Amino acid sequence: MTQADRWMLPEGIAEILPADAQGIETLRRRLLDLYHRWGYELVIPPMVEFTDSLLIGMGRDIDLSTFKVTDQLSGRTLGIRADITPQAARIDAHSFPRAGANRLCYAGQVLHTRPRSVNGSRAPIQIGAELYGVDSLAADIEVISLMLETLLVAGVERIHLDLGHVAIYRSLAEAAGLDAERREALFALLQSKAAADIHRWVAENIEDPRSAQWLRALPDLAGGIDCLARARDIFADAPPALEAALADLQRCADALARRYPAVELFFDLSEVRGYDYETGLVFAAYTPGHGQALANGGRYNGIGSVFGRERPATGFSTDLVALNQLGSGFWEEGGAILAPDSDEDTLWQVVERLRSEGEVVIAALADGAESEVRARCDRELVKRDGSWVVQPRG
Amino acid sequence: MTQADRWMLPEGIAEILPADAQGIETLRRRLLDLYHRWGYELVIPPMVEFTDSLLIGMGRDIDLSTFKVTDQLSGRTLGIRADITPQAARIDAHSFPRAGANRLCYAGQVLHTRPRSVNGSRAPIQIGAELYGVDSLAADIEVISLMLETLLVAGVERIHLDLGHVAIYRSLAEAAGLDAERREALFALLQSKAAADIHRWVAENIEDPRSAQWLRALPDLAGGIDCLARARDIFADAPPALEAALADLQRCADALARRYPAVELFFDLSEVRGYDYETGLVFAAYTPGHGQALANGGRYNGIGSVFGRERPATGFSTDLVALNQLGSGFWEEGGAILAPDSDEDTLWQVVERLRSEGEVVIAALADGAESEVRARCDRELVKRDGSWVVQPRG
Repeated sequence: MTQADRWMLPEGIAEILPADAQGIETLRRRLLDLYHRWGYELVIPPMVEFTDSLLIGMGRDIDLSTFKVTDQLSGRTLGIRADITPQAARIDAHSFPRAGANRLCYAGQVLHTRPRSVNGSRAPIQIGAELYGVDSLAADIEVISLMLETLLVAGVERIHLDLGHVAIYRSLAEAAGLDAERREALFALLQSKAAADIHRWVAENIEDPRSAQWLRALPDLAGGIDCLARARDIFADAPPALEAALADLQRCADALARRYPAVELFFDLSEVRGYDYETGLVFAAYTPGHGQALANGGRYNGIGSVFGRERPATGFSTDLVALNQLGSGFWEEGGAILAPDSDEDTLWQVVERLRSEGEVVIAALADGAESEVRARCDRELVKRDGSWVVQPRG
Repeated sequence: MTQADRWMLPEGIAEILPADAQGIETLRRRLLDLYHRWGYELVIPPMVEFTDSLLIGMGRDIDLSTFKVTDQLSGRTLGIRADITPQAARIDAHSFPRAGANRLCYAGQVLHTRPRSVNGSRAPIQIGAELYGVDSLAADIEVISLMLETLLVAGVERIHLDLGHVAIYRSLAEAAGLDAERREALFALLQSKAAADIHRWVAENIEDPRSAQWLRALPDLAGGIDCLARARDIFADAPPALEAALADLQRCADALARRYPAVELFFDLSEVRGYDYETGLVFAAYTPGHGQALANGGRYNGIGSVFGRERPATGFSTDLVALNQLGSGFWEEGGAILAPDSDEDTLWQVVERLRSEGEVVIAALADGAESEVRARCDRELVKRDGSWVVQPRG
């Protein structure tokens, strides 16, 4: 590596320069303030932990996504966090336990060994909120509402909300008596949303005609609110857990439609994202023209059990860098005042007073090459009749 | 590892729970706002970079302090940043170059393989400011002033400022004609501040009587402002670089004494901290009862050359976690309003209005175990005569 390319950054690892950094900082503050007003308390988990604490069964990909290093002090393996959610779950289970509801929020860089999408970032700034200790639909609705508020604060004008429920696939797999291997196979087919392949697989693997009919119907049960009514017909005599999941989706949709009439609701009953750790409602928000989900989350009851305390849990997270790139312009560079190069005490006092009033005051240092500093300043301090006054720069 | 100890954190790696997290967040905002008002622009460098970019000769310890991982995409070695300063230098040199002064600031977690002091943290939250492109004493004074303002904002009441200048030792080592090996030996002795060992070493290694006298005097030249006058006597015929360093220290001390009369100034002319990369004034701030420096910095011209652009540079940094632990209480939990468990639209509208006015409103969820949520709320929403009103909780 020569001097000239030492400045290169690894693929998918970006540095954030002032205009974007100020936008992200502004948005970060607004969102943390939002979460605070909803009663969510801030935690700051560390960048690394023992992998045993980070890799607690929250999805197949997270182990592969996590950079590992050896801890010189303990000799054990540390992981650089790829997700803050397991850290929040640990805090709820152990360090900051509450008897009932525990609302936590966080914001911080995470790191992925590989980007999760083509040209995707390996270093998002994850911000999110988690609600522990309450296993009711009201808690799911609160968390989804807060996710939508997040996008509204971020200036996202058109929001598509996708709702799903992992109990639907789970109930059907159980009713069909699928063993682990066939569960995996069907799971993979559903993930790829390949209806024809699913039909073929069902014909070859499912003998019970009712189960076969249910599983064949699944990939088509996606779209607007009417697909809930179709599902109620199709699954009329399905297991009660499935019926309950459909009822939850309906009640959730009704509540959200009243609170956020402008948000477009979509349903995907074959959604299996997070199937291996999520346990209830799952949700993701999109905006037209942006392929990746802007924010997502779901219910993941039971995670705390690896820390010795099983707790209901639901939450969401998003990426501040991606939200800022949508370009709502949270930050506008205001004017600044140029202070001349002088060490007069009276000048210092005026400069300090202006700064304490919120003005940006930049000192002209005696280097004769301050053109870019001067360009930032729309006013300047000049001495007139023995006192310092602010005047527009010509 | 059993379930019960999965919550353990690595030694020196802390998680930060709500009371402290809110204190740190409040302080973080106040400091970034302070830097903004002084014209410093925020950058957000990534958590990892190629080690070739991070380990650019800024001190002997930083290589050993840096956790390394292999990048799966490039096959090259990445370092988890142990210091944000090299990242800011890279940004000034390459990604965000300015012709004249470039003022940058940052805040973020860094990670050290080993704590830098007994029971020290391996995961400080580094916040700091760097001023590139100006090689004048006025720039040093600006940066030291901003470091002092940082501590004042953090509520540090008694500030001791230590000032030194690496040109003093460097000039004397050069005048004495020390080769690399002897330079190292003397450097180590000065670092340990062992006056008797220094005297013995000088007697054995330095033949020129004038150089020997200078080097013997060095460890005693520490203390209040009077040590500058003593130094001017002792080094009356020393190399001009040393004379210039003494003059800089005097002018810097004069300017700071006028701006911050309450700050106690100390000088240590044998200070060699950062000798291998710092090039001018070095400074550190302490407070009684706290052994470690609260903040420190110095001039480190030339760092940018590894990125193809040599630039004057001076800056400082501090640790938000440590500042917050000094306990000035930046954050007080205010009251909150409890909203009953109801999905009435009129309640939702009142809750949203209260939140938009800045109130914290927490929903009572139907889990019957909300005692800790209720304890946070000093008021509640109740329906009276058909409309929702806020009343104190009894």
